[in-house]
Amino acid sequence: MFLRGCLRSLPRAPPNHRLFSSSQAYLSTKYPSRPQTIRQLLSCPEPSVSVQSSPIEVSGWVKSIRRQKNVTFALINDGSWAPGVQAVLSAANTPKNLTNGASVRLHGRLVKSLGAEQAQELQVAAVDVLGECDPETYPIQKQALSIEYLRDNAHLRPRTDAVASMLRLRSQLHRTIHNYFEDQEFTYVHTPVITPSDCEGAGETFRVIPNSPSPSENNTQEEEFFSKPAYLTVSSQLHLEALASSISRVYTLSPCFRAERSQTNRHLAEFWMLEAEWAFTHGIDDVCRVAEGCLKSVLANTTPDPAFPWSEGRLQSLEDARRSDTWARMTYTEAVKELERYHASSKIFEFEPKWGRALQSEHERWLSESLVGGPVFVTDYPTSLKPFYTRQNEDGRTAACFDLLIPHVGELIGGSLREERLGHLVASMKKHGLDEEEYKWYVDLRRFGSAPHAGFGMGFERLVSWLSGIENVRECIAMPRWANRMLL
Amino acid sequence: MFLRGCLRSLPRAPPNHRLFSSSQAYLSTKYPSRPQTIRQLLSCPEPSVSVQSSPIEVSGWVKSIRRQKNVTFALINDGSWAPGVQAVLSAANTPKNLTNGASVRLHGRLVKSLGAEQAQELQVAAVDVLGECDPETYPIQKQALSIEYLRDNAHLRPRTDAVASMLRLRSQLHRTIHNYFEDQEFTYVHTPVITPSDCEGAGETFRVIPNSPSPSENNTQEEEFFSKPAYLTVSSQLHLEALASSISRVYTLSPCFRAERSQTNRHLAEFWMLEAEWAFTHGIDDVCRVAEGCLKSVLANTTPDPAFPWSEGRLQSLEDARRSDTWARMTYTEAVKELERYHASSKIFEFEPKWGRALQSEHERWLSESLVGGPVFVTDYPTSLKPFYTRQNEDGRTAACFDLLIPHVGELIGGSLREERLGHLVASMKKHGLDEEEYKWYVDLRRFGSAPHAGFGMGFERLVSWLSGIENVRECIAMPRWANRMLL
Repeated sequence: MFLRGCLRSLPRAPPNHRLFSSSQAYLSTKYPSRPQTIRQLLSCPEPSVSVQSSPIEVSGWVKSIRRQKNVTFALINDGSWAPGVQAVLSAANTPKNLTNGASVRLHGRLVKSLGAEQAQELQVAAVDVLGECDPETYPIQKQALSIEYLRDNAHLRPRTDAVASMLRLRSQLHRTIHNYFEDQEFTYVHTPVITPSDCEGAGETFRVIPNSPSPSENNTQEEEFFSKPAYLTVSSQLHLEALASSISRVYTLSPCFRAERSQTNRHLAEFWMLEAEWAFTHGIDDVCRVAEGCLKSVLANTTPDPAFPWSEGRLQSLEDARRSDTWARMTYTEAVKELERYHASSKIFEFEPKWGRALQSEHERWLSESLVGGPVFVTDYPTSLKPFYTRQNEDGRTAACFDLLIPHVGELIGGSLREERLGHLVASMKKHGLDEEEYKWYVDLRRFGSAPHAGFGMGFERLVSWLSGIENVRECIAMPRWANRMLL
Repeated sequence: MFLRGCLRSLPRAPPNHRLFSSSQAYLSTKYPSRPQTIRQLLSCPEPSVSVQSSPIEVSGWVKSIRRQKNVTFALINDGSWAPGVQAVLSAANTPKNLTNGASVRLHGRLVKSLGAEQAQELQVAAVDVLGECDPETYPIQKQALSIEYLRDNAHLRPRTDAVASMLRLRSQLHRTIHNYFEDQEFTYVHTPVITPSDCEGAGETFRVIPNSPSPSENNTQEEEFFSKPAYLTVSSQLHLEALASSISRVYTLSPCFRAERSQTNRHLAEFWMLEAEWAFTHGIDDVCRVAEGCLKSVLANTTPDPAFPWSEGRLQSLEDARRSDTWARMTYTEAVKELERYHASSKIFEFEPKWGRALQSEHERWLSESLVGGPVFVTDYPTSLKPFYTRQNEDGRTAACFDLLIPHVGELIGGSLREERLGHLVASMKKHGLDEEEYKWYVDLRRFGSAPHAGFGMGFERLVSWLSGIENVRECIAMPRWANRMLL
């Protein structure tokens, strides 16, 4: 990956860029590239031969500084990769305001480092301190800062190693997921955030109203901006089904919203969700395969970052999942049997496992962590536990669906075949008390050229949590929102 | 691109996929690929040699059907590319319910076509009609349908060629943009949709409230889900600045919202915006170069689609922009001089151009379409016309910013240097009457290691409009929202 970045990004000098102008290689692309980042400068084996003898410019923030009698060592990072670069300055050449947190532009040359921690370091000839940073009042001190303290400083916490690494991980996951779905010929689509559907029932959704001068006034139909009540989406699925009914294979990575007041480490009021939907599926096995393929591709393209707080066992379980050929599958009915058997002897669960009841978090963890020891697809839940659109199995009791359970994370993905049979869907909607008029467009998809189709959804922050070892999803997104918390 | 798709996506047979199982090539990836789409089947030169003699399976919807005495021609599309595939069936083999709009699975072989319109066609051995479609009541008829009618059938309009092409174009633009920014070492980030900031003033934003049992009740501070009023974001910029102050180069493609009641062909209540922000910029020229580079990269990777409604001149102007080496730049002051000169002789503008006034749409179009005859960056607008965060120039009258004007489209991108000087920013906030406490976090970015930084924003639907010739942005997004309009 580094090499590829290097090959594609040889910089052209920006206009006022004195030091670069005579010595840099040019790439004859149609558009100019930006100056090299620290990651590029340090990770290109070939250019570095010439770079060692060429003057370069490095911009970034001071992450730490050690002043010795004759020499100063400053760790500089621009956020392009975790290690940053060590800058070496003569004491005479070190300005007083070169402090932790200051932003700087350094001019110098890369040289072989005498230290053991890095191969190269920057021998600094000149320093511009672009933005000072008072070391007394700077909220991001060098010592370990509590998670709560960093949440209170959400605007500055990306300056810590772990949060910066999390941001890069998100970007990398995003790219890997897009590559996977592009390879599978899916079209990336944008589904609406504002919807007329109060999908999963009152109380869990946000309402959207125009910011009228008196927002507390009675909101009658006439005052609705869209002529009817509007909500923030909790899932893109129904919209994706409309698109999959036209161009077959679609997916989205989209913000979703739940006005949940529960304060767990797995829920946010605003989160991102990957959702894929496709027509002409051959069955639930196909859905599991696409989901597993997506995660296998993610695992193959993600290197565990040492900046993350890996607790005992999590790293190993990630490695096991990566190496495992095919992930385990069992039906809900089999899973409940196993849970019942184990509970009979151990009485370990708070909630007694029983066919027809939802699996609790403790059950899900036992299944994946203890019984299987890895990711497991639990399929064919009782129809009564699943939403109205889930396709009913021939047995009349279960639905064609799955939850993917992951050690330490719990449910990561949920998917199903969607009911494509007009009669079955209408009957199910009646049973769930849904207004057929409101869902007329959705039923239309079954009326005109209906096709067997399926899909799944994955919480993006939970994926980040799995691949980073960060336990709480609030640390898996840049600016988290939850009940009573929205700082910026 | 086709070849690359082929090389990467040789399919492995899905479980129940009888016809494929013995004849398909396997690629030893770690995850299984999906069955080939029509695009893949028809566009792989090498595999097609063997495919011609191998039985294949094609799924899709009937786009049109011609029944002759002995033979039936049906155009089948799965949405993977505009042309679809022509299927040829014997009359005896054509079921009665094979009608326009039906979804089908066809088994047969690809053969050289005798028709002039396609190189290969599908000789059908067996037909499964998966979902019938009553030709009498199907809303998507073969003849041309009005834009208004299709808006009323938003759930089915992606089945038309133009809307399906628009969806594929969005996906392709999305990918090109990500490639460009990845090449430039930007990190893709997610910024919040729900924000505490009523950014551009009351009346233009949406309020977010929990969907309490009685949403019409007085919403006091206590009843706010986030302990304070919440809005839908109108721009990610301020949040991006926080991230660029930590990891240097960031961008997002994110939904934005404006509760605008104006009914123009350039505005939506919910739209997508590309926004990039980076630290250590060398000046406004740098910002123009990144914006131009992004669009040049898009132009180089987009093939104009004949399914779109290209009006006279638009296609040519796109081609001109693609070939042009560097796009024109002029200051606002120069632009106003040109406008004044032209207006003095022609009196053609409704609004008189004058230094200090905003450029009207008619001015912008004249500058790009008539004066320059191509894209033009207009830079250094009067400070009074720009938001509080725009960096003031040394002249004290103008700000370091630009609007990129495009023929037929108008303003496509707006960008600026951001005021990184603490004193200047605080003074500007006072002048704009902003509450310093509310923006404390934003000011902090200037207090601790401030760096010269810049960014720009581009409306994604306007980009789609430019590259598709589709005049109205309502047809540039799958499920548009505007005042009084939200169908599904």
